[in-house]
Amino acid sequence: MRIVWSTGDIHGIGPEIVLKTFLKLQETEHSFLVVGSHKALEYYRKALDLPVELELISDARSVNKLCGTRCRVLPVLSVAEPETITPGAISAEAGRIAMLSVAAAAELCRQKVCDALITAPIHKEAVALAGFKETGHTGFLAKLFGISSPTMMFFDPVTKLRVALATIHEPLEKVPELIRQMDLVGFLENLARSLKTDFGIDRPRMAVLGLNPHASDGGIMGSEEKEIIVPALESLEGLLRVEGPFPADGFFGAGRYRMYDMVIAMYHDQGLLPFKVLAFDTGVNVTLGLPIVRTSPDHGTSFDIAGTGKASERSCYEATILAISIARNRKKTEQSS
Amino acid sequence: MRIVWSTGDIHGIGPEIVLKTFLKLQETEHSFLVVGSHKALEYYRKALDLPVELELISDARSVNKLCGTRCRVLPVLSVAEPETITPGAISAEAGRIAMLSVAAAAELCRQKVCDALITAPIHKEAVALAGFKETGHTGFLAKLFGISSPTMMFFDPVTKLRVALATIHEPLEKVPELIRQMDLVGFLENLARSLKTDFGIDRPRMAVLGLNPHASDGGIMGSEEKEIIVPALESLEGLLRVEGPFPADGFFGAGRYRMYDMVIAMYHDQGLLPFKVLAFDTGVNVTLGLPIVRTSPDHGTSFDIAGTGKASERSCYEATILAISIARNRKKTEQSS
Repeated sequence: MRIVWSTGDIHGIGPEIVLKTFLKLQETEHSFLVVGSHKALEYYRKALDLPVELELISDARSVNKLCGTRCRVLPVLSVAEPETITPGAISAEAGRIAMLSVAAAAELCRQKVCDALITAPIHKEAVALAGFKETGHTGFLAKLFGISSPTMMFFDPVTKLRVALATIHEPLEKVPELIRQMDLVGFLENLARSLKTDFGIDRPRMAVLGLNPHASDGGIMGSEEKEIIVPALESLEGLLRVEGPFPADGFFGAGRYRMYDMVIAMYHDQGLLPFKVLAFDTGVNVTLGLPIVRTSPDHGTSFDIAGTGKASERSCYEATILAISIARNRKKTEQSS
Repeated sequence: MRIVWSTGDIHGIGPEIVLKTFLKLQETEHSFLVVGSHKALEYYRKALDLPVELELISDARSVNKLCGTRCRVLPVLSVAEPETITPGAISAEAGRIAMLSVAAAAELCRQKVCDALITAPIHKEAVALAGFKETGHTGFLAKLFGISSPTMMFFDPVTKLRVALATIHEPLEKVPELIRQMDLVGFLENLARSLKTDFGIDRPRMAVLGLNPHASDGGIMGSEEKEIIVPALESLEGLLRVEGPFPADGFFGAGRYRMYDMVIAMYHDQGLLPFKVLAFDTGVNVTLGLPIVRTSPDHGTSFDIAGTGKASERSCYEATILAISIARNRKKTEQSS
């Protein structure tokens, strides 16, 4: 596999965790490159005294496994270079370079020059300062590929917990109406397909959480379970192994998530509250429904510790491992079909 | 202290966990009694071969510490007796006895015959079958004492996590409007008072969660943070140590809850998802704002294992320990004021 990282915001911990992840993976059979700022990578490499050499390249196609004779050399494709580097600072320049880096790296995957993209964290405010309307990776990539509704999924390699979100960055007030309007059946079918194609799970077991407390206790607190979720699940009976709607708190409290390949949460905090508590620093973010493979660490730019060497590469490492595994599974599916 | 348990639904695990908790606490300096069905307690005592003797009493005032000469004797005040006992069955009779038992036990606390009440779990459906409108303990007790809005709080003695809910059993759709309408300042002041009176924490540190994902990210997703929560916190500056609004997922994921004496969640699942994941089987439910001390185990009737002896008394035991501690703190406050 040929794997590409985007550096994320160069004032955050992105460059550091990418360099550290490379050091952990350089001796595997895969080849790696970074798309972003060469200057920033060089800055953090020196500042943190990391035993890696950077090589400026002009064509990602030239990147192949160099280890053995040329280990410790990480190829870098420069898309834009900053005037200055100030760890911890919100800047339009850093925001612009971050997004150019994502766009260029995604393009390499679209052209199948690279097999998977791992995006290091960006900073929403910096991206907005740079004039971008889409300030998050998921929305930005969706636009780039003309996909209307990609799915945000979270995976924890330790507990094997997978959580997909039916709605993402929406005001809580809007969630019930969005659930009423969405094509829940199609959404669940897509997830089942992703679990097969991307994760190699043939007949996945999926659990759907209720929207309301106690999943409405039979309609006492809210009606979306009865009117929307239950009919959707009924129409999938015999087609998919999908169960619910479950009261969210008891479902996680009793550890029932362990019995399922994926848990579908109705809204952001319902999925991410238990996920972040259970996954600690190993959680990974995956975008489902894109033509390319894209994962990312499940944390932000951590401006407070940028440049100090304290950043843990754990989540970025796990995101890379997962991206490789998804790319491998997709190739298998392509070959067999 | 004189401590009273209500048996809860006699077809559930209530009588079992009460008997087992008594066995653990009988040699402490406190005296205990149960209010409910003598027949049911006798049934489970025999069925599960528990080394405890029951003594029918007619007046709770007569209950004093008997240990030493009379250990293993648990006094029982009978309020109603069932025709039959069928573990696992939803029945109107069991629902009725459960609520009569709660009412009688609460009355003993109101009259200061007992110092604290621990309620074993009831079954909402059974209670509804028995014709009660209020099918939950918190609402039932609120009505009994003429309190309009008692607060549901959860405490985990292991992690010391305390979570209070700003809204409880409401459809998700109604939550934003309820947050807009409530007296958030008064609510937070009451919680601070409870932390002092009930938990002996003089200047508690409190954390308020945002309503929307990422606590709205500065207003991008929802406006309740800016319009309601931030102004409430600002008006309490210098009066209370209360901070927020925090993005809920990151707050719990990063373990920040450890820095606070109480976390205030805006709605049911936002508080109980992380609580139930973190508290496992040690969580305890407390009703704040009642004139009596009331706690309960943080689990249901578990009809599936009723009568098998498999029920863990852990949460009921912790609820009893906490009730004793709250009663002690309240007495201290009364004496000093």
